[in-house]
Amino acid sequence: MAPRAAGPGTARGRFITLEGGEGAGKTTLARTLAAMLAEAGLPVLRTREPGGAPGAEALRKLILGQGPWDPMAEAMLHFAARREHVARSLEPALAAGVWVVCDRFADSTLAYQGAGQGLSRDAWERLCDLALGSLRPDLTLMLDLPVERGMDRALSRGDANRYEMQGDEFHARVRAAFLDIAGREPGRCAVLDASRPVAQVLELARGAIHGRLGFAL
Amino acid sequence: MAPRAAGPGTARGRFITLEGGEGAGKTTLARTLAAMLAEAGLPVLRTREPGGAPGAEALRKLILGQGPWDPMAEAMLHFAARREHVARSLEPALAAGVWVVCDRFADSTLAYQGAGQGLSRDAWERLCDLALGSLRPDLTLMLDLPVERGMDRALSRGDANRYEMQGDEFHARVRAAFLDIAGREPGRCAVLDASRPVAQVLELARGAIHGRLGFAL
Repeated sequence: MAPRAAGPGTARGRFITLEGGEGAGKTTLARTLAAMLAEAGLPVLRTREPGGAPGAEALRKLILGQGPWDPMAEAMLHFAARREHVARSLEPALAAGVWVVCDRFADSTLAYQGAGQGLSRDAWERLCDLALGSLRPDLTLMLDLPVERGMDRALSRGDANRYEMQGDEFHARVRAAFLDIAGREPGRCAVLDASRPVAQVLELARGAIHGRLGFAL
Repeated sequence: MAPRAAGPGTARGRFITLEGGEGAGKTTLARTLAAMLAEAGLPVLRTREPGGAPGAEALRKLILGQGPWDPMAEAMLHFAARREHVARSLEPALAAGVWVVCDRFADSTLAYQGAGQGLSRDAWERLCDLALGSLRPDLTLMLDLPVERGMDRALSRGDANRYEMQGDEFHARVRAAFLDIAGREPGRCAVLDASRPVAQVLELARGAIHGRLGFAL
């Protein structure tokens, strides 16, 4: 582990995001990883998007509950919520040395609003620059799963949200978008085969954290 | 009057925005102008920001009722609401030949979030490009008033919102920002002395519409 300096006496925390389509197991993996990092003695914040701060959670309800939104408006709402999350929760935590495990982040906006709803990569990058400053994840775990398997899992949970209720073609574009992101940034992104049993996916995640962040979990 | 072509047989409508600080009389003037345009035989849409479309009105409640927001998050919320307004209401109306009278638009975000809360002009321009495409007002009536007079009027209405409850120094920066915008774009913006009696302000507005848009009201 080679943490970056954050200030006198405090090493900056690491920022791990989990991305992927519906039903890929992101929430379960986030919970397990956060628990393991805490057991290893690290201060940990487990959080999610959209949400993770009071204003952002209010926006989550509006984004998922209302709509359909114009695609650019929807992207801006996600980035407004993200900006609140970054400014109120993520940046203060990372600066204080806390490791962050975040269930969805900016890649989800590119995959869903980009591939799914027509937002351009250029517009997404501009919104990233405005909302995130220089903050980017240190490691992104991309949980990849065939669309039909993920949707079976997601829909079996009940109370599907507006994204989950889209058709298979939408979710196929979203999956391809996540894989494209991983292909463009192999140093940041590790693609994990989420069709494997949970214990094996966890081993893959631990391997990625060791390999990319130098921390043996 | 020399309307631009919008399609076969339909002249594109004109887009008039009213801007200015609290208590400057924008809402009263918008109502009167819309009524006069309608009496002159034009199809007219009177609308306001934040708001003017169902999702945007929901955002208005969130922006004004919740908070404080991070300044960039707040600017993005205003532009998300604006994008909904543009896509659902303004563009379809203008394309159909309807004249639009809008109480506040993008200049308010630059004045309030820029001068008041630190949003940069560059960031504001980028958000304009993303949310508005090529849409800009044909005419902006800037209602200018000394801060203390406007605040007396605004606060006497009761139920002040989050912006109205800011101090005089904030509102002085907002006023200066509106005048700066008008100075940079004299072809689009007409500054009206809103300290005059209502009837005189209306005459100034009619003069601006005649002078800038070539329409005698």
